[in-house]
Amino acid sequence: MIAPNMATMLAYALTDAPIDSRDLDRVWRQSMSQSFNAVIVDGDTSTNDTAVILAGGQGAPLKGEALERFAGSLQAACQEAAVQLVEDGEGARCVVELNVAGAGDDSKAHQVAQAIALSPLCKTAFFGADPNWGRIIAAAGRSGVVFDPERVTLSLNDAEQSIALFAQGMPVTFDKAQAEAMMQGARFRFDLDLKSGNGQSRVWTCDLGHNYVTLNAEYTT
Amino acid sequence: MIAPNMATMLAYALTDAPIDSRDLDRVWRQSMSQSFNAVIVDGDTSTNDTAVILAGGQGAPLKGEALERFAGSLQAACQEAAVQLVEDGEGARCVVELNVAGAGDDSKAHQVAQAIALSPLCKTAFFGADPNWGRIIAAAGRSGVVFDPERVTLSLNDAEQSIALFAQGMPVTFDKAQAEAMMQGARFRFDLDLKSGNGQSRVWTCDLGHNYVTLNAEYTT
Repeated sequence: MIAPNMATMLAYALTDAPIDSRDLDRVWRQSMSQSFNAVIVDGDTSTNDTAVILAGGQGAPLKGEALERFAGSLQAACQEAAVQLVEDGEGARCVVELNVAGAGDDSKAHQVAQAIALSPLCKTAFFGADPNWGRIIAAAGRSGVVFDPERVTLSLNDAEQSIALFAQGMPVTFDKAQAEAMMQGARFRFDLDLKSGNGQSRVWTCDLGHNYVTLNAEYTT
Repeated sequence: MIAPNMATMLAYALTDAPIDSRDLDRVWRQSMSQSFNAVIVDGDTSTNDTAVILAGGQGAPLKGEALERFAGSLQAACQEAAVQLVEDGEGARCVVELNVAGAGDDSKAHQVAQAIALSPLCKTAFFGADPNWGRIIAAAGRSGVVFDPERVTLSLNDAEQSIALFAQGMPVTFDKAQAEAMMQGARFRFDLDLKSGNGQSRVWTCDLGHNYVTLNAEYTT
């Protein structure tokens, strides 16, 4: 069981890989920080989030490169499950990947990504397929992380294209219809570079739309 | 200009009371903490929140009891304006007052009140007129403030009646239809007592409903 900043879920992983318990703990925590602890639906954490990994442990324990290969596969599997969790988020229309780079350190980058992922104004803009760079920059600005707004760049991306929205602290002229069409898709990404360091973070979130309201206003516990 | 945790607004107050600038600064900041800095619509702060007070300053400065009377009137006026601001919050159906008591200190009580006021799950329950004590206690629990859940009490109140929802860490049997009817009103209050100290805080917030989504998904800047 780890810190409850996952998203109302119980995750159990099983492997027959031979692995030291200390190594297993390390790669599991690493995987969590890049997967289940990097997704935000609404910020309301659950009282019973759990992630556990069990390994059979037969044979000589994985070490060195083999261990890192195992860690990479584990992280990829957890990431896939975590993104599916966001896709299935209450009433979600789209999955939005937030890549924050250039913060003072990784935790500051995560703080910025979280502020955007939790912002109702950003999330309703995602729902409305509105490339509203102002709301994203404003959420970053109120995150508590200090950066120079005059160096910031922001782009909107999907698998095929990238549209610059903001560069060196200024809005960029872009094709609004093209950006809106991209945001009408089921999955898109914002790359935000604060240009103030090497810290980075990736968070997956979703939009806030009518279905979220309906589901949570009409459902009681 | 003070810390931007108000709610997208420019507030100007003018008085012909004679008052020392240092006293004016103190009572103004005091008023702000109990009014404009105690309201939350969606947590997305503005880039241009401003609150300024100007005093003519003719005559002998107010001191002692007269100064405190002035401070009380100023706070009441600011509080009224702040609550109107929440009433007029984007798509708001109701104003919800959150009274948190019994925290270790006032700032911890405020942290708990803020977590509830920002919680999408609590706010959609307000919209749905759902006396969902579980979401309120859960938001308090994830606020970062440590308290003993087994001592907590929670009640729902309006000008006429009070309904106990939760006492000493346990749900209380209550008339659900009566509680729902109370929450269908334009204004109601939750009193949450953590019974872990003397800290208290009062915050005004609103529900999160379909009109918020519509307004912010269809409006761009």
